[in-house]
Amino acid sequence: MSVNKSNRFLKALLREPVDRTPVWIMRQAGRYLPEYRQTRAQAGSFLELCKNPKLATEVTLQPLQRFPQLDAAILFSDILTIPDAMGLGLTFQENEGPVFQRPISHRQDILDLPKLDIAKDLDYVLNAVESIRSALDNRVPLIGFSGSPWTLATYMVEGRGKVGFEKIKQLAYEHPKDLSLLLDKLVEAVADYLNAQISKGAQVVQIFDTWGGILSTQAYYDFSLNPMAKIIEQLEVNSQGDKVPVILFTKGGGSWLEAMAQTGADALGLDWTVDIKKAKKSVGNRVALQGNLDPSILKYNSEVVRQQTRQVLDDFTSDGSNIGHIFNLGHGITPEINPQRVNDMLNEVAQETP
Amino acid sequence: MSVNKSNRFLKALLREPVDRTPVWIMRQAGRYLPEYRQTRAQAGSFLELCKNPKLATEVTLQPLQRFPQLDAAILFSDILTIPDAMGLGLTFQENEGPVFQRPISHRQDILDLPKLDIAKDLDYVLNAVESIRSALDNRVPLIGFSGSPWTLATYMVEGRGKVGFEKIKQLAYEHPKDLSLLLDKLVEAVADYLNAQISKGAQVVQIFDTWGGILSTQAYYDFSLNPMAKIIEQLEVNSQGDKVPVILFTKGGGSWLEAMAQTGADALGLDWTVDIKKAKKSVGNRVALQGNLDPSILKYNSEVVRQQTRQVLDDFTSDGSNIGHIFNLGHGITPEINPQRVNDMLNEVAQETP
Repeated sequence: MSVNKSNRFLKALLREPVDRTPVWIMRQAGRYLPEYRQTRAQAGSFLELCKNPKLATEVTLQPLQRFPQLDAAILFSDILTIPDAMGLGLTFQENEGPVFQRPISHRQDILDLPKLDIAKDLDYVLNAVESIRSALDNRVPLIGFSGSPWTLATYMVEGRGKVGFEKIKQLAYEHPKDLSLLLDKLVEAVADYLNAQISKGAQVVQIFDTWGGILSTQAYYDFSLNPMAKIIEQLEVNSQGDKVPVILFTKGGGSWLEAMAQTGADALGLDWTVDIKKAKKSVGNRVALQGNLDPSILKYNSEVVRQQTRQVLDDFTSDGSNIGHIFNLGHGITPEINPQRVNDMLNEVAQETP
Repeated sequence: MSVNKSNRFLKALLREPVDRTPVWIMRQAGRYLPEYRQTRAQAGSFLELCKNPKLATEVTLQPLQRFPQLDAAILFSDILTIPDAMGLGLTFQENEGPVFQRPISHRQDILDLPKLDIAKDLDYVLNAVESIRSALDNRVPLIGFSGSPWTLATYMVEGRGKVGFEKIKQLAYEHPKDLSLLLDKLVEAVADYLNAQISKGAQVVQIFDTWGGILSTQAYYDFSLNPMAKIIEQLEVNSQGDKVPVILFTKGGGSWLEAMAQTGADALGLDWTVDIKKAKKSVGNRVALQGNLDPSILKYNSEVVRQQTRQVLDDFTSDGSNIGHIFNLGHGITPEINPQRVNDMLNEVAQETP
């Protein structure tokens, strides 16, 4: 049996009728789960966990084992695997997040970036995709993903996770040709990377654009959206010859949903500041919408969690239709969350009366 | 001669024809100006500068002396004067920003907040308004301002400028009645405060909602927009019996412009992520729009500054009309900016061919 025909997540992505709104959680395999913290301790570090297909498979499946309400799995990996494979030397430091040992400083650094051979340079990711697909046994679809070219470029130029955007904006405004060169290289790498994930079994792909939302409109179109659109154009069908749905998520991108809906994406991720009712009206039937509960809601009590979850569902269906909604948080779940609150949220979605 | 009849800033706020787009800069009297740094050193601290009407007048006028292109002055003060007057003990600490010595922790703290007598408790602000109006001698209009109730509540509950929003969101979601009580008290105080500024000569008022943009849509309406709308309802005419234009600025509020336009505000401030072209279409002729150059643009070279300034102007007039635009940054100007780049930006606005 192929998962493709019956899964409500895939149906919602294609704007087909569903029995109830599907749900998954950004960063659902993460530190808020005690079982994750145990496996991570075993792996040594976050990066070693990403690079170990067996353990990456284990943590990918953990939230599904705990929460049967979930309708999708997402590859356990990091958005910065591509710059790491390009030789920038990714490390994770306490209270600092990602740090590159060799960030991009000059035009020559951009010229020197190698063209990746994904099958070789990022074999651990592709092995994880295969291993997870096999372990999932078609229970739910697997989402592959990558950072967007703009987001990758931001980290590569700023050099660390706590970014102030000084360097990347200087590149954008004072040396736009150098930035274009970098973005072109990243478009190629990300397209190859997502196609490799698709060929190994990813059934949906999401492009995470963490930093597009710090840009002005024209800069967003030029530096973030346009490169993402080029990637979508280059995505290939899967081994069954089917097109794989693409989700675009720009955090802080609420102003640009109509333009995002014209890229060929199948769904748009919405952060929690977006009015999902208005978003639905503005994108019409061109794309599905994913989101958008404020992740901080999960810090509060059961009643708040259920009421706020209900609000998102009700807002989406206020025009009488639940077609094209994938419930999710408006950003990744944070480490301090009590898994019981996640269960409350998922129960509220799963008990939905259509 | 009354400034009211001829000033292009006031005309633009009322959506009347102007000879060119008016311009002012959020935080235009600030640390990027060497003359400001000198006066501030003389005052001792930022707060002492705010509390000294003579020196506050001096710094308010400095940018106008340097940049004749500016079309408005803004009262030199801080958004946290109200909680300070309520007894929370405002201080400013190096690398930390505002810190309250006695933040709000319990319901009783909210109940204990005194009703302000603005004329007495914030006399230094009213004296500054009078002193600045006199020094301006109707050259340009004076903007008065306050923080929004939600923004003030956020600082009062979090206790410091580097906020994580944990405590204020807990109050909002787990103790909404306590938050309502706090917001009601702040609505009253802010309305009284702005009315007092108007009675002393403020010709326009702006409500700064720095933190509304971290909320979900319904929470924004309940906790940020609705209290601001209540304030607008309570604003009184000036001593000539004229209504004073109100500008609402929610940073990160691009999703909610249509609702903001229905509060009775005359103009909406836009941060730089908002598509001003789309914003204009969505609010129609109900309000003027103020903004929205990315403030970080001023870090780059003259050519970039002029080109990006031109882009904002062109985006606004792409439908053939410059009516209802006040040029500004999308957020306050930052201390490291070279005043020469500000001049470049202002020249580009002033040389506009209508």
